[in-house]
Amino acid sequence: MAATENVRIVLASRPHGEPTLENFRLERAPLPVPRAGQVLLRTRFLSLDPYMRGRMSDARSYAPPVQIGEVMVGRTVSEVVESLHPDFRPGEVVTADAGWQVYALAEGAALTRKLDPAGPPPSTALGVHGMPGFTAYAGLHEIGKPRAGETVVVAAAAGPVGATVGQIARLRGARVVGIAGGAAKRDYLREELGFDVALDHRDPEFAAQLQAACPAGIDVYFENVGGPVFDAVLPLLNDFARMPVCGLIAHYNDTAPPPGPDRTSALMSMILRRRLTVRGFIQRDFIALYPRFLREMGAWLREGAIRYREDIVEGLENAPQGLIGLLRGDNFGKRVVRVA
Amino acid sequence: MAATENVRIVLASRPHGEPTLENFRLERAPLPVPRAGQVLLRTRFLSLDPYMRGRMSDARSYAPPVQIGEVMVGRTVSEVVESLHPDFRPGEVVTADAGWQVYALAEGAALTRKLDPAGPPPSTALGVHGMPGFTAYAGLHEIGKPRAGETVVVAAAAGPVGATVGQIARLRGARVVGIAGGAAKRDYLREELGFDVALDHRDPEFAAQLQAACPAGIDVYFENVGGPVFDAVLPLLNDFARMPVCGLIAHYNDTAPPPGPDRTSALMSMILRRRLTVRGFIQRDFIALYPRFLREMGAWLREGAIRYREDIVEGLENAPQGLIGLLRGDNFGKRVVRVA
Repeated sequence: MAATENVRIVLASRPHGEPTLENFRLERAPLPVPRAGQVLLRTRFLSLDPYMRGRMSDARSYAPPVQIGEVMVGRTVSEVVESLHPDFRPGEVVTADAGWQVYALAEGAALTRKLDPAGPPPSTALGVHGMPGFTAYAGLHEIGKPRAGETVVVAAAAGPVGATVGQIARLRGARVVGIAGGAAKRDYLREELGFDVALDHRDPEFAAQLQAACPAGIDVYFENVGGPVFDAVLPLLNDFARMPVCGLIAHYNDTAPPPGPDRTSALMSMILRRRLTVRGFIQRDFIALYPRFLREMGAWLREGAIRYREDIVEGLENAPQGLIGLLRGDNFGKRVVRVA
Repeated sequence: MAATENVRIVLASRPHGEPTLENFRLERAPLPVPRAGQVLLRTRFLSLDPYMRGRMSDARSYAPPVQIGEVMVGRTVSEVVESLHPDFRPGEVVTADAGWQVYALAEGAALTRKLDPAGPPPSTALGVHGMPGFTAYAGLHEIGKPRAGETVVVAAAAGPVGATVGQIARLRGARVVGIAGGAAKRDYLREELGFDVALDHRDPEFAAQLQAACPAGIDVYFENVGGPVFDAVLPLLNDFARMPVCGLIAHYNDTAPPPGPDRTSALMSMILRRRLTVRGFIQRDFIALYPRFLREMGAWLREGAIRYREDIVEGLENAPQGLIGLLRGDNFGKRVVRVA
């Protein structure tokens, strides 16, 4: 039965602090009709990512906010339903930025990645073999630069970026300490991913455990969390340590700065005295590396050198709760919505 | 008349907050006697630098603290009085780390720079043609990397590092905004050094003036101050701005962190969203560049492409007050003590 309508989730209002279900609205709309050069896509998988919290606010950032009433943005794995572009045929599977909806139009010229049916499972193009995996790869390659024998610490280590950071760092010969919330994730890091040490940031003794786990200090801290983990890491950083900063999920729902004292000057003083490099990035800043990443990660996945875990949410209607939970850290692996 | 005793200033006690004269003690001691391989040096000029405040404390840093009762450390321009090393003869002038004293021994093998009598005035080897000048050069070369047409902001711009940063950045084709305290320094930046804009950070309208002076934002902020200047700069930084951090003089006398709120996460968030590079350094981290700096700066000085100003304190006994004042920003140019 051919579909006659689209289903989509729009931003109903801007959150104050943690998003709630009321910030989203599910709508029905007519099925869009492609023009010349366009393709009609049906979403198979929608990626849920922490950066989406930023798009719900209207603060200046590296991308414009979603406007009220607009479809929430998001990277998808989509199937071509109808094509008015010579490079695409129905049934082919591509990555797209179709957003939180079942059907979407795309310019064929803008679709840069067709998935190989013989390659890794399509959903990995949203995770370990896509943006989160590339975030890990690019941040380590361009900023972290771990050398053999150095100590790399990664937070949110059971998430798609952190898990990949840790595994790549081990492939580069570094010693890896992963931080995650809860015993199950901690066990996963040690037993499935082969991290050297895994710690639970909820443990009351976490800061002391981290110090014990890093007897030679920390050379690379891959920052995607902020908050108390950052506080525990900072005093352990070695001279010339590198800190790629690609996320601060602990702060995305902040409505006001934390109470004092103001430790900004203490942080700057640490940056000076230990000659730290603290550098923010998003993966697309390093897009020239992307083809190399796809090849190298593709090989690692085939060989089993890099492992991954997915956390599937069933149905587009459950995407809002999926994002709210993700921002609380309740995912275990890459959170993806199975849409179709 | 041959001298028979040494005069030196030792650390009498550690300061709490701003140093006082009581933290220093002037002592007399026997003239040291060189052994084989050593030279006896007489100090002609002693450099006073903000980093000396750090050495008076025993917090972990990139160099060990001065111990109580030890001679204060410091870079000097010194004359060889007696030499038991084949490379040096009496009357030759070298740079040394002789500290706050009139006479000192040095291993000849450790004296790496003999000053050319036909070169720039010897005291410049402590300023524009020495460590502060090299700090400016290395920080711009390795971290700031200003491109033609970019906006470079430098604080403490009438000091030896800042003045050199601004002039080198202009030679590289950047637009330079200098910040200093008071009208005399501001005029100096504009009229003597050719900065594009000069601002007085004491002006109540300073933050608004800085914004007006940077209509295209800030691409490089050379951080050697911290405090309210940093606060005014931060919101104006462009995407991919670079911040070499080589000093935080506004905080060296802090006895406790400033009151809240804690803006650490706001700073980290800015680093992430604008993809800033914040990197601490000291000049010796880039020592491989030093020969190139000496050549290039020597040429700039000969040509008059780089100008400098010195602020001479007469007599070793006035060094403590000279350092205390330096930390308050009362110097105008490179502060040097004329010792002999």
